[in-house]
Amino acid sequence: MAASYNICLDIGGTKILGAIFDSKKNIVYRLKKKTKADGDDQQNVEETIISVVSEMIKEFGIKNSQIKAIAAGAPGVIDQENGIVLTSPNLPWENYDIRKPIESKFGAPFYIGNDVNVGVLGEYKYGAGKGYKNIVGLFVGTGMGGGLILDGKLYTGHGFKGAEYGHMILVPDGPKCNCGQRGCLEALSSKQGMSDYIRQQVARGRESMMADGVKDGVFKSKLLKKSLEAKDPVAVEAVSRACYYLAIASGNLVNTFSPEIVIYGGGVIEACGDYFLDRIVADVDRYCMPSIRKSVEFKTAALGDDSILYGALSMILDKK
Amino acid sequence: MAASYNICLDIGGTKILGAIFDSKKNIVYRLKKKTKADGDDQQNVEETIISVVSEMIKEFGIKNSQIKAIAAGAPGVIDQENGIVLTSPNLPWENYDIRKPIESKFGAPFYIGNDVNVGVLGEYKYGAGKGYKNIVGLFVGTGMGGGLILDGKLYTGHGFKGAEYGHMILVPDGPKCNCGQRGCLEALSSKQGMSDYIRQQVARGRESMMADGVKDGVFKSKLLKKSLEAKDPVAVEAVSRACYYLAIASGNLVNTFSPEIVIYGGGVIEACGDYFLDRIVADVDRYCMPSIRKSVEFKTAALGDDSILYGALSMILDKK
Repeated sequence: MAASYNICLDIGGTKILGAIFDSKKNIVYRLKKKTKADGDDQQNVEETIISVVSEMIKEFGIKNSQIKAIAAGAPGVIDQENGIVLTSPNLPWENYDIRKPIESKFGAPFYIGNDVNVGVLGEYKYGAGKGYKNIVGLFVGTGMGGGLILDGKLYTGHGFKGAEYGHMILVPDGPKCNCGQRGCLEALSSKQGMSDYIRQQVARGRESMMADGVKDGVFKSKLLKKSLEAKDPVAVEAVSRACYYLAIASGNLVNTFSPEIVIYGGGVIEACGDYFLDRIVADVDRYCMPSIRKSVEFKTAALGDDSILYGALSMILDKK
Repeated sequence: MAASYNICLDIGGTKILGAIFDSKKNIVYRLKKKTKADGDDQQNVEETIISVVSEMIKEFGIKNSQIKAIAAGAPGVIDQENGIVLTSPNLPWENYDIRKPIESKFGAPFYIGNDVNVGVLGEYKYGAGKGYKNIVGLFVGTGMGGGLILDGKLYTGHGFKGAEYGHMILVPDGPKCNCGQRGCLEALSSKQGMSDYIRQQVARGRESMMADGVKDGVFKSKLLKKSLEAKDPVAVEAVSRACYYLAIASGNLVNTFSPEIVIYGGGVIEACGDYFLDRIVADVDRYCMPSIRKSVEFKTAALGDDSILYGALSMILDKK
């Protein structure tokens, strides 16, 4: 009998990462492709997924019948019990049953969940969260994502809308957030928040290596890393400010959940994790209840860019 | 065969409430007694519990053999699986196995949990939270207590230390809190926080009906009620400020948990619940993610001062 494989996807607003896992949970093939999410055409994304999976199985040289299951993490509010994308900020999907077309195309079960939830699940099963029962995940990217493992289970809340503590308000009447509110953690500490801060400083006539990188949107994580290494003052300030609010938010979450571990992930952490972690941990004692602080660890994600792929794998394996 | 009963206790820093429940979950006898918690003598409280239970069964006219079980809510960090009070802010207990002496005295099983946790459990099973699976409880008293029902189960976090969002920091460098930190919700919106505010205003030479009531500590909830009815300006201000921060905290918790309901309880809410709820709800839209806001309700505790007694009852009944 031919060997069988699981296919896992990390579906972003601009790109899809794909991986084929063998039965020993090793990644045996990888693919990265741009998402065609322009326009309002839901099928466009669906076609991209189908074309990515088709390409993967073709290039790796297996047949549909060798696919045990396919799973994905994607941005948005996702009914992961039924495989329905309820809403998605960066993808043109609403109440969209993505499971059916994928399953009928490949003849294998398909699972999907919110990307940060799935990423935290990956860290729980195979990464920095292994062996813990209560995990708070904070993913710092363009936005600020959350994911929770509580009593050993992914917690998604009513209507799969929980873990949105990226929109915890820390500064009433603070800087504007994409969500429409002011002073959310996301507006203070995400790429967006840091980019806004840097742009303001540049507009005041200050010089920064990051000036061009934030001109038309958010910086790339690699540029931030370089700028921190060069001790660019504006970059250092932006990150200090981001870490200050990440420490307050982390303290609030630690007091709320009494988790064993807080895991920081996402693109910014993948590029500059130690720099952030040192600053957050230096401040966090102040914001945790001392008795709870004693029993909690703070770590960066161990799987880096693969958190979501491994989380998708664990969605498949947990179903069995 | 003689009827059997459950005995439930709400153990506070200054008083114990006791109730005898019949098999139909009706309270058939009640007792209220001062706690002798002075000094460091752990047995003092234990003796008070024993004397309260003994008095209850004597007055109600039943024998030890008719007690099915005894359960209690008490302040502090409590290992409710093993009946051990780990620490308690207002009671002289540390790593104290309270279960053993009570069980050996009465020959019936004894259960104990954190008072606000137990109160939220009571509201979940018999009060405002009936039929919901995800509940955030905020109890406004001298301090600010939290209790969580998540996926239909009481969530206590690692080491039974969770749900301490009373110490969520909303104003970095804000007013000092009993926990040692600044700007916690408790320091802003609890009786303590409101009393501090009123005291400051009185010290500035302003007049208030509540001046005497906050001179040596925190006001009594009944005095606050009277002062609000009389539209005492300082009382109205103190409450507006408390509700403003309660609304921000509620929004943050709603975004974090996506609960079906937020329940406000505790002494202040029992006395002035509608006044608080109106003001919190008027502000809360601003602080919740709109999509999550749609599916959450905000209510005051339905069982009032009996939340903890009913929660204790449900600890007993859930064991079977």
